[in-house]
Amino acid sequence: MQRLPGFRDYYPEDCAFRNYVFENWRRVARAFGFQEYDGPTLEPTELYKKKSGDELKTQLFRFTDQGGRDVCMKPEMTPTLARLVAARERDYRKPIKWFSISPFFRFEKPQKGRLREFYQINCDIIGDDSPAADAELIALAVALHRVFGLTEDDFFVRVNNRHLWAEFLTKQEKPIERLPEFLSIIDKLARDSAEVTAHKLKGFGLELDQIREFLATPAESVPGFGGLFRELRWRGLESFVELDLTIVRGLDYYTGLVFEIFDRKKENRSLAGGGRYDNLVSVISDGAIDLPAAGFAIGDVTFADLLRELDHTRIRIEEALGTGLSAFIVVADESRRPDAIRLASSLRQSGITVDYWFQPAKVGRQFQQAEALHAIYAIVVGQEWPQVRVKLLAERREELISIDELPALLGNKNISP
Amino acid sequence: MQRLPGFRDYYPEDCAFRNYVFENWRRVARAFGFQEYDGPTLEPTELYKKKSGDELKTQLFRFTDQGGRDVCMKPEMTPTLARLVAARERDYRKPIKWFSISPFFRFEKPQKGRLREFYQINCDIIGDDSPAADAELIALAVALHRVFGLTEDDFFVRVNNRHLWAEFLTKQEKPIERLPEFLSIIDKLARDSAEVTAHKLKGFGLELDQIREFLATPAESVPGFGGLFRELRWRGLESFVELDLTIVRGLDYYTGLVFEIFDRKKENRSLAGGGRYDNLVSVISDGAIDLPAAGFAIGDVTFADLLRELDHTRIRIEEALGTGLSAFIVVADESRRPDAIRLASSLRQSGITVDYWFQPAKVGRQFQQAEALHAIYAIVVGQEWPQVRVKLLAERREELISIDELPALLGNKNISP
Repeated sequence: MQRLPGFRDYYPEDCAFRNYVFENWRRVARAFGFQEYDGPTLEPTELYKKKSGDELKTQLFRFTDQGGRDVCMKPEMTPTLARLVAARERDYRKPIKWFSISPFFRFEKPQKGRLREFYQINCDIIGDDSPAADAELIALAVALHRVFGLTEDDFFVRVNNRHLWAEFLTKQEKPIERLPEFLSIIDKLARDSAEVTAHKLKGFGLELDQIREFLATPAESVPGFGGLFRELRWRGLESFVELDLTIVRGLDYYTGLVFEIFDRKKENRSLAGGGRYDNLVSVISDGAIDLPAAGFAIGDVTFADLLRELDHTRIRIEEALGTGLSAFIVVADESRRPDAIRLASSLRQSGITVDYWFQPAKVGRQFQQAEALHAIYAIVVGQEWPQVRVKLLAERREELISIDELPALLGNKNISP
Repeated sequence: MQRLPGFRDYYPEDCAFRNYVFENWRRVARAFGFQEYDGPTLEPTELYKKKSGDELKTQLFRFTDQGGRDVCMKPEMTPTLARLVAARERDYRKPIKWFSISPFFRFEKPQKGRLREFYQINCDIIGDDSPAADAELIALAVALHRVFGLTEDDFFVRVNNRHLWAEFLTKQEKPIERLPEFLSIIDKLARDSAEVTAHKLKGFGLELDQIREFLATPAESVPGFGGLFRELRWRGLESFVELDLTIVRGLDYYTGLVFEIFDRKKENRSLAGGGRYDNLVSVISDGAIDLPAAGFAIGDVTFADLLRELDHTRIRIEEALGTGLSAFIVVADESRRPDAIRLASSLRQSGITVDYWFQPAKVGRQFQQAEALHAIYAIVVGQEWPQVRVKLLAERREELISIDELPALLGNKNISP
């Protein structure tokens, strides 16, 4: 029997890698003062109808549950976050700084970098619309990459602001209601041919050259970015960030800042994206709560691909995964098995990772098992009890010590994967 | 807009509690030499058709996906585990000792202790059918409770073996094919009235008294339990374990040992359950792989209820959740804001949890925010730069130190939630 296409099994080595990425993300987000939250796996479909992009709506794992409800497996976090905040915003001081690490579900054609179940870390700041909040999010997004040893040679951030295109349309005397439609043309500039783009623009009475001219605007003369870029400089992020007016993001709910992180070597590979969505909390709460908000998400699939491809991160990963076993107890004298088991129980209770073989076996075979499990120490329980022979397996050193000395010895070498 | 009934939102305080439970579970399972694995949230429905109990089959979140596949959100872990092992058992040394912590989905009537999305820790040993393996699983299940301070006054384990009832039926010359049906009568003994049970037994040509007599068999005279109880004694677990012939477990795939952990004060409240399922890997692999296996699961809903109810565990929880913030930076002189931000960035890079206010504000309001966020230290950046005033907020002590000394000072007090 097979797993479904686009879904993943996590054998221990895969799970250790996943935990390694998630634990580093958690540590960095907490260092920035973000608190972890989470939502249900299943939500009412209505939650996504209001504001997500059209593409997302066609990719839902959507069904009617046994209670007759129209439900779907969550395709993204932001609507859930807006729902949580709208329900209890009075209980939390502003700005609310929250993150979550959760699985998401989209019915995509499975291919490299795209799966039907994937994880994201989502980080959001709610209740603050300053350039400092925008810069803080970009700084966190960068830090979530740098913690794995990725540098400005590996990735960079393209930032833009949807307001700029709104102003452009207004200046050209085009109807602002058509902004989403117009932005989807800009979004596809790199993928579409010049002919296709020119044809689409005709519907707006615009020429491709007008767009090209606007795209060439030098960063320093774009109004409204001064505050953000100053804040980014204070955080030492100049070398990570570029202005790019073609970045508009696919989701309908973004209102201002948008940004996307790209692989420096494969520039068409997007690692993360986000932006400001000042109206979403109000929409989700039917106007009851109005709070500015901004956030971003990093998906785990492309991110893990990048980490595994780069030599300098691959080495770190191998080191980090290492072994999980501090000691393997070798029972050399079967009459001592009850003592060996009691020893294992008491070491485990001190949080030390210990294993042993359930069945009687030759000492040599038990040592083989110890080495196969990458144990740091072998502890031989035999006739010297209550002394035991302790062998540091990598160095083949051996000494006879009392069992009372074991916790101190092993506690220092306790490495969890 | 509301969340679906039977589903949970995790606000930061809920998420911190969830993480506290899961991290302790992880640590204990690893100490026992178990490695973490995981599977997809969605599986082909076929995976559950073969061996799960009837009750489970009526509770599935089941639907047809956009590709026309009959799928369901996983209601339990064991079939997924059997699938993983069947596919790659040659790559792993026996016994395979794996655990996972994952969400599950059952369409139940939402009520105290029962939700439609809940978590379980699942622990399994595959490739070993000795009493030592059974005892090791029970020892781990007990340790996963004791790590939170729960004692034999709070919970206990009822063990049984389905073979005993198979032998009983054979001795009474009843057809062994009807064992599942018979076990479901035993499973409901406590809930059904004597009349109802007697009526059901009539279908087997059995009297209630025959059952009562068998149930009264003293533990020591039950064959086949000697090895298990000796192994349990070696692990110091006598006071946690009782033989109880009425424990048969609802799932069809159990073949031998079955056990269930109960709240000592509310004996009808089950906290965990498991058993031996020696045929499941073979069934899932259509006979290609045949490996003995046993395992158990602890659900998070009832478990968390119990932890919150007991005074001695509640106090531990409050201590463990504590604060996550090491320092709040107070900007006393706005011209020093770039320095304050650079300081925050560098402390965060050392993994220290630091926060500050994005907008200029009076020093007093910034201190209020520091206290509201339960920061351990406030760091006042002002005219003394590159020296800063550091205040231990709980004690109101204050000293002027160089920023170079900060990482060492704060590193010691870094508490992650």
